[in-house]
Amino acid sequence: MHPAAFIDIKVKQGEYTPQQLDDFIAALMRDEIDDCQVGAWLMAVLLQGMTIKEAAALTTAMASSGKRLNLDNSMPGPIADKHSSGGVGDKLTLILGPLLAAAGIYQLKLSGRGLGHTGGTIDKLESIPGFKCDLSIDTLLDQVRRIGVAIGAQTKDLAPADGKLYAIRDVTATVESIPLIASSIMSKKIAAGAPTIVLDVKCGTGAFMKTESGAKELASLMVEIGKALGRNMRALVTNMNQPLGRAVGNALEVREAIEVLNGGGPPDVRELTLELAAEVLLTTGTVSDVGKAREQLSALLANGSALQKFGDLIEAQGGNRKIIENPNLLGGHSAIKSPGCTKGGWVKSIDPMTIAIACKNMGGGRSRKDDLIDSLAGVELNAQVGDRVEAGQSLLTVYCAEEAQGVQLAQQLENTAFILSDRPIERPILVLERF
Amino acid sequence: MHPAAFIDIKVKQGEYTPQQLDDFIAALMRDEIDDCQVGAWLMAVLLQGMTIKEAAALTTAMASSGKRLNLDNSMPGPIADKHSSGGVGDKLTLILGPLLAAAGIYQLKLSGRGLGHTGGTIDKLESIPGFKCDLSIDTLLDQVRRIGVAIGAQTKDLAPADGKLYAIRDVTATVESIPLIASSIMSKKIAAGAPTIVLDVKCGTGAFMKTESGAKELASLMVEIGKALGRNMRALVTNMNQPLGRAVGNALEVREAIEVLNGGGPPDVRELTLELAAEVLLTTGTVSDVGKAREQLSALLANGSALQKFGDLIEAQGGNRKIIENPNLLGGHSAIKSPGCTKGGWVKSIDPMTIAIACKNMGGGRSRKDDLIDSLAGVELNAQVGDRVEAGQSLLTVYCAEEAQGVQLAQQLENTAFILSDRPIERPILVLERF
Repeated sequence: MHPAAFIDIKVKQGEYTPQQLDDFIAALMRDEIDDCQVGAWLMAVLLQGMTIKEAAALTTAMASSGKRLNLDNSMPGPIADKHSSGGVGDKLTLILGPLLAAAGIYQLKLSGRGLGHTGGTIDKLESIPGFKCDLSIDTLLDQVRRIGVAIGAQTKDLAPADGKLYAIRDVTATVESIPLIASSIMSKKIAAGAPTIVLDVKCGTGAFMKTESGAKELASLMVEIGKALGRNMRALVTNMNQPLGRAVGNALEVREAIEVLNGGGPPDVRELTLELAAEVLLTTGTVSDVGKAREQLSALLANGSALQKFGDLIEAQGGNRKIIENPNLLGGHSAIKSPGCTKGGWVKSIDPMTIAIACKNMGGGRSRKDDLIDSLAGVELNAQVGDRVEAGQSLLTVYCAEEAQGVQLAQQLENTAFILSDRPIERPILVLERF
Repeated sequence: MHPAAFIDIKVKQGEYTPQQLDDFIAALMRDEIDDCQVGAWLMAVLLQGMTIKEAAALTTAMASSGKRLNLDNSMPGPIADKHSSGGVGDKLTLILGPLLAAAGIYQLKLSGRGLGHTGGTIDKLESIPGFKCDLSIDTLLDQVRRIGVAIGAQTKDLAPADGKLYAIRDVTATVESIPLIASSIMSKKIAAGAPTIVLDVKCGTGAFMKTESGAKELASLMVEIGKALGRNMRALVTNMNQPLGRAVGNALEVREAIEVLNGGGPPDVRELTLELAAEVLLTTGTVSDVGKAREQLSALLANGSALQKFGDLIEAQGGNRKIIENPNLLGGHSAIKSPGCTKGGWVKSIDPMTIAIACKNMGGGRSRKDDLIDSLAGVELNAQVGDRVEAGQSLLTVYCAEEAQGVQLAQQLENTAFILSDRPIERPILVLERF
């Protein structure tokens, strides 16, 4: 392994062999590559790109840098893993986990804590009193076998090379490389061992991928990588130009998840839940057509099975299952309604970043890895894009530990995050592309 | 200073302001930039390029990272600095220093030790018994004032930021960036303070710059940078497709330099000496036309003034000046002639890299910074490109500490480094372009 010669291959626009990428990642894990070389290599990859073959080989190399789970035949039913690239108000893992378990799908879900503008699934779950996510893989797998679903915090045992590369990408302006994003995500999915992987690639102002072309490229590449590595793959590119649903903030999103699991909730969250869950049922071969899949899933939401499964999940991980009947047990700050819009109209857009940053500033998110968060802080939208609103109607409600800050933010968000139109606005398309 | 944001400007093909580059180099010198960030930034510059403005600003920032000499008005006559980008058999600094001093030009010359395939001026001078190059800047400047010329080893006090960046470029496959090469060279020249700078940019198989287009781009950029920073600039792009002169190896090159300073020597070395020295006289405004310049310089070579000045230089830096009359005082290994070519013809090419690598393998060069070298090892060419040779004529002579190795190399080089032609071959053009 001669690191400079390895880097130079990409400078000269060459294609790496799988062996070369394996050797590089192995040398990285043995601390034989200088940080300056890792930085230079990441930049070369960002600017010169990678072929699908290279990205698949890098994914394999990173997945093989730590423990690899093999879930095939280890569960009494089909196994799937759903992953979202993250967006504002994206609480779908909280809903899909129990719903799919109720439909007979086995899921070991490893999630991250929030950093940056989007919340993390783990933070959301930890807003449930007693809920524990830092569990061993074996404990989580036992739970999956028992109740069909377990959601744990991402462990350093899986794909540790990705952690090493990510720490350097984060400080070298090399995060935005599609092959690096794809192999980072996929290396963890491959190491986690599910034979079926369904991806929700968010796209828009509130997502990591801002452009539709970028999101499509990422989705397509991840599907190709997964297929090359023998997985059943499916990816949807979905709209993230407004927050998903009405709730943004950890405990508020758990409440909204409970609403959807109880057969209600905002139409966009419910619809995307059905879209993604149906893909999982189809891709695992559990049902043969999308109509039947949606029918079965709707029934599980309507008859309380999905909600009870959420109760099982909470109970299994140490939380208070009573919150599914009484979400007020989550606690909450007092509601501060925004003063109301000056004139009526139709909601044209709601900027997800403005909402997300406000939540973070109220203590609901982290700037650094070890920041503590206020899980009760958040924003509830009283209208979504396409809704008709009247003059004087309050457009959002803020939940904040400090009342003065909350009052100020409520007014500010109403003025800056919402744009109204004089004419009717169509509801945005949720699913932009399928791979 | 936010390093990732700084790097991202180049990722996005933006242009840095001088202030941004100043801040970056200042932060680098305070050890506030992680190595991974330096590596990523260098790669971004390699792949995205830099404008002339940026390269000039980077040069200034690096020149200002340490001590800056201001030679203007500090000497009793015009001051100049000649720099070569390095090639096989390039002993011109040893000749130009004394010759120009004899012509009334004051020169403080800071040179490097050899690393890689080309020898360093310092190594060549240190083959003279007693010659010292590790002298303080003040000592060197005193000597320049007294005898017109001093040649010292590059000090870490000048442009230390360049040293820091170079150490990382060397291991990250980012050496070959023309703006980085140009600002690296020019930062040291600017810090060294000469108002007139004449550059010899070597081009060809034996040079760092292999292609004419690359060499021209580098030469032109360095001239632009120097002009932007208020220097009188001149650059020649010169041929390095065969070794310069007949001698390759430290002590052998000192002998050849003495020949030229004594009015003789191989025609190509003599001609390039006159070309470059004339440029210095013209650019400093010492003479008004090239004819007069060459006439004056030829006289200084013919009448012994240049050679005596070399004696003064040797004496001033602790060496034995008698070598100028008796070069055998340099010592030497016994001469091993190559067996002779199988048939006659005209020399079409002599590969400089093959010759250089053989010299290095005999101990004449370094693989690592602290390798000791055998200054007596080397190769003497008995013919140059364009010369007629007869069957059986020995094409080269090897000087090697180990006779068996020398015999083997002599035969091998005769077979591999030389290509003969059945038809007459023109002598190569020495100066390919002038800026």
